[in-house]
Amino acid sequence: MTIFSKIVAGEIPSYKVAEDDRFYAFLDINPIRMGHTLVIPKQETDYIFDLDDETLAGLQVFAKRVAKAIKKAIPCRKVGQAVLGLEVPHAHIHLVPLTTEGDMDFHNKIEVPQPSEMAHIAAAIAENFE
Amino acid sequence: MTIFSKIVAGEIPSYKVAEDDRFYAFLDINPIRMGHTLVIPKQETDYIFDLDDETLAGLQVFAKRVAKAIKKAIPCRKVGQAVLGLEVPHAHIHLVPLTTEGDMDFHNKIEVPQPSEMAHIAAAIAENFE
Repeated sequence: MTIFSKIVAGEIPSYKVAEDDRFYAFLDINPIRMGHTLVIPKQETDYIFDLDDETLAGLQVFAKRVAKAIKKAIPCRKVGQAVLGLEVPHAHIHLVPLTTEGDMDFHNKIEVPQPSEMAHIAAAIAENFE
Repeated sequence: MTIFSKIVAGEIPSYKVAEDDRFYAFLDINPIRMGHTLVIPKQETDYIFDLDDETLAGLQVFAKRVAKAIKKAIPCRKVGQAVLGLEVPHAHIHLVPLTTEGDMDFHNKIEVPQPSEMAHIAAAIAENFE
């Protein structure tokens, strides 16, 4: 069971921003930008391109809804996305609010916000999720 | 008309790796890794999350097919994907062969391969496209 499956199951806490029957979105706890969010399928699959077409399409459309909520909650020009997939063996899309292209830099972790601030950010995104 | 629309129209040459009626894939001419490919909708839309759900889903499923072809043609652990979207105002997915997470670094351009090598890489990916 991956750490992300444990998050979905509620065994590990997360700052949830959105959920439906197939997908789950929550704040990255080692963010590179404020509002950096992970979107995952509940189905445990390592490599995103091993997802069947329908699940991959659904994941992307769900991620779009999350990205629109992030854009409303966090000041930025666009919400970028990235899939690296070499660490946690459970497919996940990074959504990152961008002002410059350099903001999508996985070497530049920001200082982790305090729990109360993380909760506030998650709530602000969740409120804008449609 | 964006530079990418000119590429689709054949007004600007590209190292094409795949195409269907709605989507087009070609080598990035300023690659960060060998085999770095861009996947675009022919429809000219700036922000990827402004694409309608059906086009976004189709783009992602097309990108998956391109990613599988890249993985067969270029030695790597996985093919990662990124969308930044702050430069060319025409939605595009970067597909990048990854061996380490650090390989997805848009500050680290590799030396641009010679045209004959670029053509060879594009052909190798195209041959594996299903």
